[in-house]
Amino acid sequence: MINTLYLPELREMLAADNSDELGEFCIALHPARTAEFMEGLSADETWLVLSYTDSQNRVQIFSYFSTEKQEEIITTQDRETVSLLVAEMAPDDRADLLQDLETHLLEDLLNRIPAEERRDYLRLSQYPEGTAGAVMTSEFAKLDANLTIEQAIHEIGRQSEEYETIYYLYVLDGEDHLLGLVSARQLLEGMRKPATKLLDIMETDLVTCAPLEDQEDVVDKVARMDLLAIPVVEDERKMLGIITHDDIIDVVQEEATEDAHQMGAVNPLDETYLRTSVLTLSWKRGIWLMILFFFALLTAFALELYDRNLTRWVWLVPFIPLVISSGGNSGSQSATLIITALSRGHISLQDWSQVIFRELLMGLLLGTGLGILGYCVAQFFPGVDSLQAALVVPVTLLLVVIAGTLTGSILPLLFERLGLDPAMMSNPFVAGIIDILGIVIYMNVAIWFLGVPPAN
Amino acid sequence: MINTLYLPELREMLAADNSDELGEFCIALHPARTAEFMEGLSADETWLVLSYTDSQNRVQIFSYFSTEKQEEIITTQDRETVSLLVAEMAPDDRADLLQDLETHLLEDLLNRIPAEERRDYLRLSQYPEGTAGAVMTSEFAKLDANLTIEQAIHEIGRQSEEYETIYYLYVLDGEDHLLGLVSARQLLEGMRKPATKLLDIMETDLVTCAPLEDQEDVVDKVARMDLLAIPVVEDERKMLGIITHDDIIDVVQEEATEDAHQMGAVNPLDETYLRTSVLTLSWKRGIWLMILFFFALLTAFALELYDRNLTRWVWLVPFIPLVISSGGNSGSQSATLIITALSRGHISLQDWSQVIFRELLMGLLLGTGLGILGYCVAQFFPGVDSLQAALVVPVTLLLVVIAGTLTGSILPLLFERLGLDPAMMSNPFVAGIIDILGIVIYMNVAIWFLGVPPAN
Repeated sequence: MINTLYLPELREMLAADNSDELGEFCIALHPARTAEFMEGLSADETWLVLSYTDSQNRVQIFSYFSTEKQEEIITTQDRETVSLLVAEMAPDDRADLLQDLETHLLEDLLNRIPAEERRDYLRLSQYPEGTAGAVMTSEFAKLDANLTIEQAIHEIGRQSEEYETIYYLYVLDGEDHLLGLVSARQLLEGMRKPATKLLDIMETDLVTCAPLEDQEDVVDKVARMDLLAIPVVEDERKMLGIITHDDIIDVVQEEATEDAHQMGAVNPLDETYLRTSVLTLSWKRGIWLMILFFFALLTAFALELYDRNLTRWVWLVPFIPLVISSGGNSGSQSATLIITALSRGHISLQDWSQVIFRELLMGLLLGTGLGILGYCVAQFFPGVDSLQAALVVPVTLLLVVIAGTLTGSILPLLFERLGLDPAMMSNPFVAGIIDILGIVIYMNVAIWFLGVPPAN
Repeated sequence: MINTLYLPELREMLAADNSDELGEFCIALHPARTAEFMEGLSADETWLVLSYTDSQNRVQIFSYFSTEKQEEIITTQDRETVSLLVAEMAPDDRADLLQDLETHLLEDLLNRIPAEERRDYLRLSQYPEGTAGAVMTSEFAKLDANLTIEQAIHEIGRQSEEYETIYYLYVLDGEDHLLGLVSARQLLEGMRKPATKLLDIMETDLVTCAPLEDQEDVVDKVARMDLLAIPVVEDERKMLGIITHDDIIDVVQEEATEDAHQMGAVNPLDETYLRTSVLTLSWKRGIWLMILFFFALLTAFALELYDRNLTRWVWLVPFIPLVISSGGNSGSQSATLIITALSRGHISLQDWSQVIFRELLMGLLLGTGLGILGYCVAQFFPGVDSLQAALVVPVTLLLVVIAGTLTGSILPLLFERLGLDPAMMSNPFVAGIIDILGIVIYMNVAIWFLGVPPAN
């Protein structure tokens, strides 16, 4: 996904040391786009281009590079100038970058940045991946409750460059306890009464989150309340940081990818697909393939138990994949529906009886449909020579599809009840369980309609 | 998911006609929370509670009700007072609500609201679901380029109640063509030079989207640039509306659910799980189950072709589910990885050769692993009486897993290349294709190692 449009021009400008045009290139576009156009440059070239703009703009463009490119620059370029840039990064971006570095490089960089930024990094890096603390930034606009609207506006105008957002301004006491929130909107609207104190206009019923709270729960709060940012507070509302809307969008995308991977029986990746090594990927997949292999082995043993039936009625064999895939597919569908509905908050555990009743109904409908198809198809198979024989496959399909919809809905609900992530009920896992059920149902329906064959 | 905490108190207050406490209840909390506490009330009770607060606050709380509850209120309460509320709703929320109503009710309501709001609804409702136009709001803060910062701040303070966000202010010419953007941040920072004209500080390199653009592409732009809102423009940058960060989060969640459903072989739902009827759900699942049924039927015919082999070597039969599920599962994993990486923009079509090479490698690794397991297991099966026989299952597993990883990666890439949604390559669909491949590979490996059995 490298945009090569500007690369030749950029290289020409570098060769000619054209500082006017390079400076202009760095400020003309949104920093995200500037970063995009530079992705194809080498680390050396990139660093050189960035030397043509001021430090504030340099940090902005740098923050939009991929972590891969950021790391390459950090490790290859002059340590002293690099550390100046690191010191100026937004705390959450800085923490994301530094935590992946090798220890000796990290220590060297930390020693070179000011003590305040160093402490800040050490505080942020203590929160585990996936918690609110790990995505928050510690830079937010703080105000005193006794400021007037006019004073607040001047204060904000003075400090605003430091903060990720100045649209939510937090009112804290002397010990950083969160007292309330004043929005930039309130300040602008309040311009008609500039002497009003923040104390009198601030919102005090605030939605907050704890630093160790699951980032998925934080997303739910922000999404439900349409917030621009959410404060992260410790005991007694001591404020640690905020999570802004742009980070929330990143988290939503990350969580959706993670859920999709789990549902597809892949352990979630820490990096993007191409940046994860083949060995790591194989491990994250292999562990599930092995579990599923043992399920399939159970199915093999189940079939082995019935080998007399299969030898007597050989025409049963070709329908084995049909039977187990019909059960597996309807089970995967149910699991997908229930897992996504749980994770979006569209259903909760209290709805279990309604959910199971609906899945039972759908199983009946879908199973009857597939059963009718199965009956028509069975007519054309050699060996299916009686009404009894023709009924084996359709009746099996009906029962197997019902087993599928019930298993596919009950398992995720059960996982949710046990406090586990329902997305761990991957579709192949559900399908694996239904495979065994399917074989047992198939063979018993066959015995029911056709009788037990005599021992050889 | 109904919060019943406050219901008894609310009903008591209503019985006692306690206007002080009811009025206080309506304004004390964030409207989203107030709405949450009211979800358990009947439509009549809800409407009565809302009568105790002013119209602006009433609309805010109402907007946070579920569409279900909104519709119930609209259809059951006094048409005239209801239409006043509808007229005051945010244009995008209003469009979402009205488009689900029955025609005669919709027409009656449209006739009762002011002409401007009516035209606005008709304009918004023309954009198909899933486009930028369908999620945008037509109310945004517009300013003239010749205003000074001071004038702009006063203008905003005066008008701000009308707009969903006043943090991005759009500079338009007399014919609504978008000239630039001034952020509230720029205004607050610019307070030191209040006579500066907007013309001199506005950003002109803006990221915009077209009304018929896919909402997924809009999300990508906003997420990449960390925007608060994105303008929707027609030809010649005529501005139609904006999409704000909160709607973007909703879209991300919606699209993720849709992708998950497609990957689980369920056609995307228009409503939440519980609000979709069993019949509709059965249809959205049944159509896929039928397609997959015919795949499985092909597998059955493939097995039928080899029935001489299966009669001669009955011990091959129990391994059928093992072979096809190993292929299907590794294929589902690949498809999941490639589809999510494509939709997140982590890979693109240009990376196809790298992707396929990696999947081939993983197929080799995973297939070898499963093959070794299969070799160990095969030893214990009665009928497996030679080295040749013991090698059939492991060699098949190796080949089938490679076929799985290749099919699972090539199919989504192919769909992307053809301009189709790669998520349509559902995991069961990929698994269905690999089932057939798996049977053909299994039987041919058996013939290779064991020879062709004589005709009966």
